[in-house]
Amino acid sequence: MGDEVKASKFIDNLKGKEPVFICTISNTMTAMVPGITVAGANPEMIKYTPPADVELVYHGECRCIPGVPATPDGKPTPAIITMSVLKRTEIPFFAVEAGCEVKPCAPHISLNIPDPGDNIQTGRAMDRTVVENGVESAKLIGKNFAELADYLVLGESLPGGTTTALGVLMGLGIDARGKVSSSMPKNPHEIKNRVVEEGMKAAGIQMGGLRDDPLGAIAILGDPMMVGVVGMALGAAPKVPVILAGGTQMAAVVALISRIKPNILGNVAIGTTKYIVEDRTSSIEWLIGQSADIPIFGADPGLGKSRKDGLRVFESGFVREGVGAGGATLTAMLKSEGEITTDIIRDEVEKNYEEVIESKLGKS
Amino acid sequence: MGDEVKASKFIDNLKGKEPVFICTISNTMTAMVPGITVAGANPEMIKYTPPADVELVYHGECRCIPGVPATPDGKPTPAIITMSVLKRTEIPFFAVEAGCEVKPCAPHISLNIPDPGDNIQTGRAMDRTVVENGVESAKLIGKNFAELADYLVLGESLPGGTTTALGVLMGLGIDARGKVSSSMPKNPHEIKNRVVEEGMKAAGIQMGGLRDDPLGAIAILGDPMMVGVVGMALGAAPKVPVILAGGTQMAAVVALISRIKPNILGNVAIGTTKYIVEDRTSSIEWLIGQSADIPIFGADPGLGKSRKDGLRVFESGFVREGVGAGGATLTAMLKSEGEITTDIIRDEVEKNYEEVIESKLGKS
Repeated sequence: MGDEVKASKFIDNLKGKEPVFICTISNTMTAMVPGITVAGANPEMIKYTPPADVELVYHGECRCIPGVPATPDGKPTPAIITMSVLKRTEIPFFAVEAGCEVKPCAPHISLNIPDPGDNIQTGRAMDRTVVENGVESAKLIGKNFAELADYLVLGESLPGGTTTALGVLMGLGIDARGKVSSSMPKNPHEIKNRVVEEGMKAAGIQMGGLRDDPLGAIAILGDPMMVGVVGMALGAAPKVPVILAGGTQMAAVVALISRIKPNILGNVAIGTTKYIVEDRTSSIEWLIGQSADIPIFGADPGLGKSRKDGLRVFESGFVREGVGAGGATLTAMLKSEGEITTDIIRDEVEKNYEEVIESKLGKS
Repeated sequence: MGDEVKASKFIDNLKGKEPVFICTISNTMTAMVPGITVAGANPEMIKYTPPADVELVYHGECRCIPGVPATPDGKPTPAIITMSVLKRTEIPFFAVEAGCEVKPCAPHISLNIPDPGDNIQTGRAMDRTVVENGVESAKLIGKNFAELADYLVLGESLPGGTTTALGVLMGLGIDARGKVSSSMPKNPHEIKNRVVEEGMKAAGIQMGGLRDDPLGAIAILGDPMMVGVVGMALGAAPKVPVILAGGTQMAAVVALISRIKPNILGNVAIGTTKYIVEDRTSSIEWLIGQSADIPIFGADPGLGKSRKDGLRVFESGFVREGVGAGGATLTAMLKSEGEITTDIIRDEVEKNYEEVIESKLGKS
């Protein structure tokens, strides 16, 4: 109940205000472990998912691949949701590129992270200096956007991101096994646990061993997306509210912030989809609760009632979240002060689904 | 007189409003023609000037070089002015990287322009597709910042930029020979004219031959900075005012806009230093007047009265402008509604000159 009061206060302050939506795109080679992700039609395509997501939001079509990013059985990227709601509500959008294998054919803010994160099974995900300089750069970006916007909404696109989140949470002392989310209805917890255990073993650390070294946790078991999102939150939240727009990956971000600058967490909330909040194969509430008492909003893009099979699946445990789809939905509702409803959002997403996905299938 | 009314109206609308300052950094190999620029301690250092300028503004020190960018005889980069005034007034700052040889050790927005502009003596400065895609990307950036800020201030750092400006102006049919500015008291007009003539000859065009092909003029005789600044202005000016923060290079930008979308020029002004406006070796007023009737503001950072020899030179014909120093000065005065005066700016610049430049000299 205390939480609900806090949450509604957080939200009331943002109604009608001017947000900026910033999506950080990254790769981690951890995504190449068989069975860990379906964020790509096949393993070769995974590296194109983050840049193609940004292209879809900016241009209304992908440029580095034909069609749109999809699972092996053709379920589309949640960027279709993000694109639809941001376009409808004219929310300004920027992409932060942090260690992508393929750069987007669209403008993007570079944090000078030259390579994707390594497979965390090695226990050496990133170079420590790259992490430190990247966080410094992202802080500057967050600080400068905080001068311009009333609040920041930080999304992400990173295939394999729940496994690196598990890694960082374990390193920081939060036993997140069985709690992180997945883009599949059958959450492959065992594979994720094994990968993280191997990474910890390779690095010679135990659970909680990186409790006092958050940037070390990123360098050993994390990914470049965390560098961008943590850095921007650190730069912006001292001045304006920050919504972390993502699923259980954001639990790692919150845990990291709680070890770096906990006092800013009063200005931070989670904005995700209701598909994540209601997911029984994971527990975002428990995960966040281990680090901080911050509001968690599960927005409903209404796709459970869609006329399109390819969109209804979001409610039945596929994809669930990504590219800040939930946070974008929430932000559209806030910016429009409720004028943009679930029904309107579903209509927009369906319209774009027809234009961007179905029309291309017809042609091919 | 009509102009003065228009100018004071333009300015009055911006007082106390929230700007964003965006500096586009680029290289053109044209800068390697002997005698064309002094924007680097020696020819090898020229490529470091644009990234080092951005580093100075973001970090208060350069990272890719020791010290700061300087002329061969040690006169410092005008970025020291930009850095001082933006810091003092907390104006948000972003860098756009467009064809730099060396990327800045600081966050930057990439327009996917992989290479510096070629020497325009070849008549092939840039790939046409790169120009078109770059303008499209820059438009998106301008449009999104226009949703966030009350107005945009667009600076540049590009050694050799007055020669490429001359090239584009000639291509568009404006006989700018003897009118573009220089970073030296003795303006090397003859070298610039020869370089442009050779480029036109190599491309098989005559003066005005690119009158109806502005993007072609960039591709043949221009540089990547123009891609960024023209694109951002095209994206932003339909919604908010845009101040082009630079010297005679911006005459090429205005000429290009006047051939692409002239109706937005009512929302565009030039903000430069009084050192450019009063320069007798060039004529920004005449150059701009060939394309449009827009306000030209020459702000005074007050360095003619500085205690520092290295700063007083700005008033005696050295450097004069760059990194949007004049536009930043103007913007600081506007944002503070006159509270930030010439005296305050001179004090700030002198303080930073001592900290960043003199203290390093003492140490070495």
